[in-house]
Amino acid sequence: MSLIVMKFGGSSVGDAERIKRVAKRVIERKKAGHGCVVVVSAMGDTTDDLIDITKQICEGSPPAREMDMLLSTGEQVSVALLSMAIHSLGEKAISYTGWQSGIYTEAVHGKARITDIQPQRVLDSVAQGNIVIVAGFQGMSIDGEITTLGRGGSDTTAVALAAAIPADLCEIYTDVDGIYSTDPRVVKVARKLKEISYDEMLELANLGAAVLHPRAVEYAKNYNVALVVRSSFTNNEGTNVKEEAVMEQGIVVRGIAFDKNVARVSILGVPEKPGQLAKVFTSLAKQQIDVDIIVQSGVISGSADFSFTTNLSDREKALNVLEQLRGEVGFREITSEVNLVKVSIVGAGMVSTPGVAATMFEVISNLGISISLVSTSEIKMSCVIDQTHLTEVVRGLHTAFGLDTEEQAVVGGPSERR
Amino acid sequence: MSLIVMKFGGSSVGDAERIKRVAKRVIERKKAGHGCVVVVSAMGDTTDDLIDITKQICEGSPPAREMDMLLSTGEQVSVALLSMAIHSLGEKAISYTGWQSGIYTEAVHGKARITDIQPQRVLDSVAQGNIVIVAGFQGMSIDGEITTLGRGGSDTTAVALAAAIPADLCEIYTDVDGIYSTDPRVVKVARKLKEISYDEMLELANLGAAVLHPRAVEYAKNYNVALVVRSSFTNNEGTNVKEEAVMEQGIVVRGIAFDKNVARVSILGVPEKPGQLAKVFTSLAKQQIDVDIIVQSGVISGSADFSFTTNLSDREKALNVLEQLRGEVGFREITSEVNLVKVSIVGAGMVSTPGVAATMFEVISNLGISISLVSTSEIKMSCVIDQTHLTEVVRGLHTAFGLDTEEQAVVGGPSERR
Repeated sequence: MSLIVMKFGGSSVGDAERIKRVAKRVIERKKAGHGCVVVVSAMGDTTDDLIDITKQICEGSPPAREMDMLLSTGEQVSVALLSMAIHSLGEKAISYTGWQSGIYTEAVHGKARITDIQPQRVLDSVAQGNIVIVAGFQGMSIDGEITTLGRGGSDTTAVALAAAIPADLCEIYTDVDGIYSTDPRVVKVARKLKEISYDEMLELANLGAAVLHPRAVEYAKNYNVALVVRSSFTNNEGTNVKEEAVMEQGIVVRGIAFDKNVARVSILGVPEKPGQLAKVFTSLAKQQIDVDIIVQSGVISGSADFSFTTNLSDREKALNVLEQLRGEVGFREITSEVNLVKVSIVGAGMVSTPGVAATMFEVISNLGISISLVSTSEIKMSCVIDQTHLTEVVRGLHTAFGLDTEEQAVVGGPSERR
Repeated sequence: MSLIVMKFGGSSVGDAERIKRVAKRVIERKKAGHGCVVVVSAMGDTTDDLIDITKQICEGSPPAREMDMLLSTGEQVSVALLSMAIHSLGEKAISYTGWQSGIYTEAVHGKARITDIQPQRVLDSVAQGNIVIVAGFQGMSIDGEITTLGRGGSDTTAVALAAAIPADLCEIYTDVDGIYSTDPRVVKVARKLKEISYDEMLELANLGAAVLHPRAVEYAKNYNVALVVRSSFTNNEGTNVKEEAVMEQGIVVRGIAFDKNVARVSILGVPEKPGQLAKVFTSLAKQQIDVDIIVQSGVISGSADFSFTTNLSDREKALNVLEQLRGEVGFREITSEVNLVKVSIVGAGMVSTPGVAATMFEVISNLGISISLVSTSEIKMSCVIDQTHLTEVVRGLHTAFGLDTEEQAVVGGPSERR
């Protein structure tokens, strides 16, 4: 008997009908001969509803410990209901909270990391013929406090459990039926990928293709857990996430992601003096301002220009921080830009394939669009452009990198490294 | 520092405003110098709402284990919210589930009994200056299963915790501001009692004065826990429930209870043969039919008449059971009566005071009302009468037994034992 972990998110268990559908889905897998451990999130809006009540009760933010106490009930409700639904269909099931499942975490509230899983109770219950349903998103610290794992926590629970059991496969059921080459709402010919590597998935997830939480992908990568992302509504094959995804013929770029939550901030005429940049970015970090791409132009007559991107919501805070540094650092001007989008191409093969960067630049310049910022990594290249051009750029890149059909090959000059 | 346990029911924490009011109430007690352990039920309709969802999911009744898993979230939500409300008012608080509070129960679901309480964690938190908030109604079996205590469970949690800590006092906060001599909606001059004994409280609680659950009263009696029942909305003094309530001057009857949920069933002409009655009542018990008063008339020419009372909702089931026994037992006729009420006078002093029964009969017969059934115990006497006469009978008894004012004495002939 193979053991599988199945994870269903909040919208998959959003109401009684959906819970019954999940129950049927799980039973199908059991009847196909698998031992099933199911990880479930809180029902649809439960978490938001609970947060709403706290706002009526507390001025300011409630203690994180009590927030965990409160929010962890959401998953406890869904596991109990799913277990009942499975019973009602005639199969044996048993639900467990995080602490009952042996999921130990740091003694931190709101975003604890899993430190250990002792899966014996879960395994015993599977051995007794039960479908075991585990509350996602939660665990217990060694001093018996209920903790939660923060955003994407249920994904992490599923992957960590799969690693600890160890399971043969971890199935992540979502609203979509897999990972796409790009957002199908932007490019109609977006293709569902058969496979993707952990690293590619990480880049895509971080860039906003939020099907699977980056922490869970990292965990899967570290423990080499075989993952599949598939639809909770259809029986379509999903996308396998694994260590080394097979390179499809001629396909170097696996997917195209984009992120509209981006603002550019530029600091012009910074005197070239050691430690100036450190001062700027330390001040930004102290204010919890996330900085993504950082670009420095060459130094001209003793001063330089810097640009960086940040979340839209952090832009104003960033400008204030910089304004306060003006005297100390002595720069000439601060500018900023919104209505941008960061378009990224991602592919593990990029590092070994010349001409990828050239192709990306060519596509964008052929459309007569100027690039505001560029950044590259081993398996990713991002260009920040004006938001109005998003669709045409993504379409152009999708075609140019052979993603429209599986047969097309990468376009790119042989002489260039990227 | 004295230690008190305060218990608030579901309607006291029914919404954000009420939770804030409870928080203030608890803080007042803390500031008055008490160490406070607070036991809370689920918010208002939470439990009913959760049960409603199960009905959409399950045909038939869901597994009791999963029901406990589900329902125990209700109290977990209220303890977290109350803790937040207290924090928000600037006091230290910490919430615990049943299992975190060291409340161990039988491995039974839906109506587990508490087997042990290990209050160290609660006590440590009190010693650290926290108001400790404990989820009522729930515990954990020794094999780590979440259990619930059934109806009145939060009362039981509070009393059992008070016994285990041990606390100096257990305060039960409710919708009413104490135990009354009878229902104030029926008799305007109904008086709030200063004191009542455990046994009297048990009789009153069982008879429908459902302020405090009988199981909790039993527990308090067994462990001699000082209880007070008081209002969560006013600062009025409540009613003390204790081992030996001081007998107020001349007051033998402490209170008058009544119960409309009663039907009379009579079996006429049962041949006098050994074991016939046992057969009847065993069959009723097998069908989970609760039988309260049983009366047998004298045997006339080899056959007897029996009557018993049961819950209204059980009447039809009882008649069916009896009909099936007709051939075997060989009785002549089955009759039944509804629209009845059982009126009971309760008082620990009754056993040692002559004339009480005579007074009760006299009051009822003076009103020209006939009595359908009578039963008596050490501290209680009940008459079943037609429901239309309820108000006048309770009023009459209230006056006759000196409950209208504290000065009035009991009326009763000196010659009669009751």
